[in-house]
Amino acid sequence: MTDDYTPAGPEHQLERLIFFSDAVFAIAITLLVIELHAPDLPFAASVHDHLLALAELIPGFIGFIISFFVIGAFWAGHHRTLALAESWSERLILPNLTMLFSIAAMPFFTAYLSANPGARLPALLYCGWLLVAALFNIRLQRIVCTAPIVDPHAPAERIAHVRRRGVSVALGALTAIAAVALLPLPGFGLIALASIPLWRRLLDRRANRAAASPS
Amino acid sequence: MTDDYTPAGPEHQLERLIFFSDAVFAIAITLLVIELHAPDLPFAASVHDHLLALAELIPGFIGFIISFFVIGAFWAGHHRTLALAESWSERLILPNLTMLFSIAAMPFFTAYLSANPGARLPALLYCGWLLVAALFNIRLQRIVCTAPIVDPHAPAERIAHVRRRGVSVALGALTAIAAVALLPLPGFGLIALASIPLWRRLLDRRANRAAASPS
Amino acid sequence: MTDDYTPAGPEHQLERLIFFSDAVFAIAITLLVIELHAPDLPFAASVHDHLLALAELIPGFIGFIISFFVIGAFWAGHHRTLALAESWSERLILPNLTMLFSIAAMPFFTAYLSANPGARLPALLYCGWLLVAALFNIRLQRIVCTAPIVDPHAPAERIAHVRRRGVSVALGALTAIAAVALLPLPGFGLIALASIPLWRRLLDRRANRAAASPS
Amino acid sequence: MTDDYTPAGPEHQLERLIFFSDAVFAIAITLLVIELHAPDLPFAASVHDHLLALAELIPGFIGFIISFFVIGAFWAGHHRTLALAESWSERLILPNLTMLFSIAAMPFFTAYLSANPGARLPALLYCGWLLVAALFNIRLQRIVCTAPIVDPHAPAERIAHVRRRGVSVALGALTAIAAVALLPLPGFGLIALASIPLWRRLLDRRANRAAASPS
Repeated sequence: MTDDYTPAGPEHQLERLIFFSDAVFAIAITLLVIELHAPDLPFAASVHDHLLALAELIPGFIGFIISFFVIGAFWAGHHRTLALAESWSERLILPNLTMLFSIAAMPFFTAYLSANPGARLPALLYCGWLLVAALFNIRLQRIVCTAPIVDPHAPAERIAHVRRRGVSVALGALTAIAAVALLPLPGFGLIALASIPLWRRLLDRRANRAAASPS
Repeated sequence: MTDDYTPAGPEHQLERLIFFSDAVFAIAITLLVIELHAPDLPFAASVHDHLLALAELIPGFIGFIISFFVIGAFWAGHHRTLALAESWSERLILPNLTMLFSIAAMPFFTAYLSANPGARLPALLYCGWLLVAALFNIRLQRIVCTAPIVDPHAPAERIAHVRRRGVSVALGALTAIAAVALLPLPGFGLIALASIPLWRRLLDRRANRAAASPS
Repeated sequence: MTDDYTPAGPEHQLERLIFFSDAVFAIAITLLVIELHAPDLPFAASVHDHLLALAELIPGFIGFIISFFVIGAFWAGHHRTLALAESWSERLILPNLTMLFSIAAMPFFTAYLSANPGARLPALLYCGWLLVAALFNIRLQRIVCTAPIVDPHAPAERIAHVRRRGVSVALGALTAIAAVALLPLPGFGLIALASIPLWRRLLDRRANRAAASPS
Repeated sequence: MTDDYTPAGPEHQLERLIFFSDAVFAIAITLLVIELHAPDLPFAASVHDHLLALAELIPGFIGFIISFFVIGAFWAGHHRTLALAESWSERLILPNLTMLFSIAAMPFFTAYLSANPGARLPALLYCGWLLVAALFNIRLQRIVCTAPIVDPHAPAERIAHVRRRGVSVALGALTAIAAVALLPLPGFGLIALASIPLWRRLLDRRANRAAASPS
């Protein structure tokens, strides 16, 4: 069925999609903390006992921090992507929902990673799921950045930049998968997620060079 | 008591109802993940142990995926329905709250389904609750799609299409109830939820045929 | 310190307060479900075992339903009250936060009630907390409905009606406290919460009679 | 990469940041309640048993109340700060996310405090984390209150007042750290958080005196 009726204007419908997405991002990012179980020690416990109990939470705290900023980065990316949209289309609903699904599942992969520090499989799954989220994000970006959804006045260079950011997340997740698979201490492989901004700069520089070269 | 004062314009009041509903949908959809308890294995656990522990989570993961997209579909339906509304009415509050109640209870029925894979009763209750949600949704649609709430410029065909979508969810839930009740492996009956788009297409085709036939 | 600068217009600041409040209401109402722990039975469990396990959840389900619609009613009341506001004032922040505090604590009192069916103290505390919430609500209404916040074009009769609704919740909570304290089966005293709409009609009728009588 | 394209107007982008932040504040403030585990007593339990069980929850309830109003105060501060912003900048994203991180972690520090009443380390960590949140907040305020983000029409005195409020939270947290470290009963040191409004008045008075003195 096709009809041209856009009930309360395209902006309103886009806003509701953005709103719903923001709420899912916000809940997923804040739910991370409930996996951190506060130590509950007997009254006579010494400071030393408390410090030992807190030390056991360090992997959980590290997982919380990483996932908080990973989800925050996906939120910022969603923000940048949807800022390029002007028109509403039903075709946005499913790819957006799939992307949100990958975000909503992050607390599970974070908890699995945090509960098993030193194990390779949880760290691999964590980075693998990040790759899944990055791919869902790239698919959403492709749909937002093409007609009829994209704002026709959005500069091509801005669109290309936003999409390169999406690609750099996938490349960073792949780098982390390789590092986790190869390093003797798999947990340290997660540091390779810090390659995301490096990939972005690399892709930006290559694009700028291509634009500057005589055509 | 009747009065004609509409404080800050009808749009504002509708927006707040939509906003509140979006937040409830977003929370229910994101809370689903906390039923997935990440395996917490001893340091010496082998990859095999991890895979076994993860395999036990498969029913939970399937339940999470189904309910995520079911709630997402109800959100999209709510989105489509409320986009037809123009005027505010106090009569919206209770039917909308009842619909949200059926959504907010979904994590419970999902957890019951996931915790007891292979059992018939949890699968029946799950599909039965979906039917309840679909009926509450149909009631809300009927109220939104009639005066004084409906946008008088909304085309009749658009309204009829949105309402047929609501009916197709109820038919799909009924199909799944029958499949779960009759199949030897009840869990597979949930696949019958995939009949929802088929029902929708069937209803759309019948409506188009009726519209095309000489009156 | 006083200054007359209203940064982005009064509407924007009010909207953010409303938005934040809506989110708190939505989270509190949706969190209620996590107190319902789904039965997790062995694979060989019979339908009878399942029905027994579900029967044990009945008090929890009743508590969930009551609190869902109680919080929903407070949300609708907040909606009606804030729809009368036109101007922003810092004086709104604390009374609004206090009201949200009473809502955010509802899941605790609901869980205590549901976990101890038949006991008098949990039912008394539940109705007592409802009274606290109703009083905080009345205080918020008084501030919203007076200068400088109230919309000067809001009809006095509308304002009085909204405030009578607030009073009727407090009277209904008091009625339930008395019923819970006196009945041999305290749980049934909660049915007295259904007196809230009766109190509202009584107060409305008395006000209409007073308005109709020659002055 | 620099470009001057502001997709849907600066206001829209700011709004989405504010919206996302409001949702995180609202979730963190409402999640506090799930650390309060309702007593679940046998049917034959006496009123005395119930009162004993409730008495054990008092530290949890106090922690809930303190953190509820602390997070509420940070929300109000964020509200005041962002009301001074007019233009969007990507430079807002990370400092805002870092501030939200400190808020999202509050339920953990609250739970640790509540589970170990009388112990000094949890109370110290709680106040220390408040100081961290206050410092992140001051950093965010500095960015919002300078070009290109700040509204050029915002009066300098208003900006200075908002920033003094941010500083007073840090001073109050420091006061509480000292009190918790020195008092024989560390829990009572938390009362020193009540010095926050005193610090604010002190800073306001000093600023007013400086403004009134002949230059």
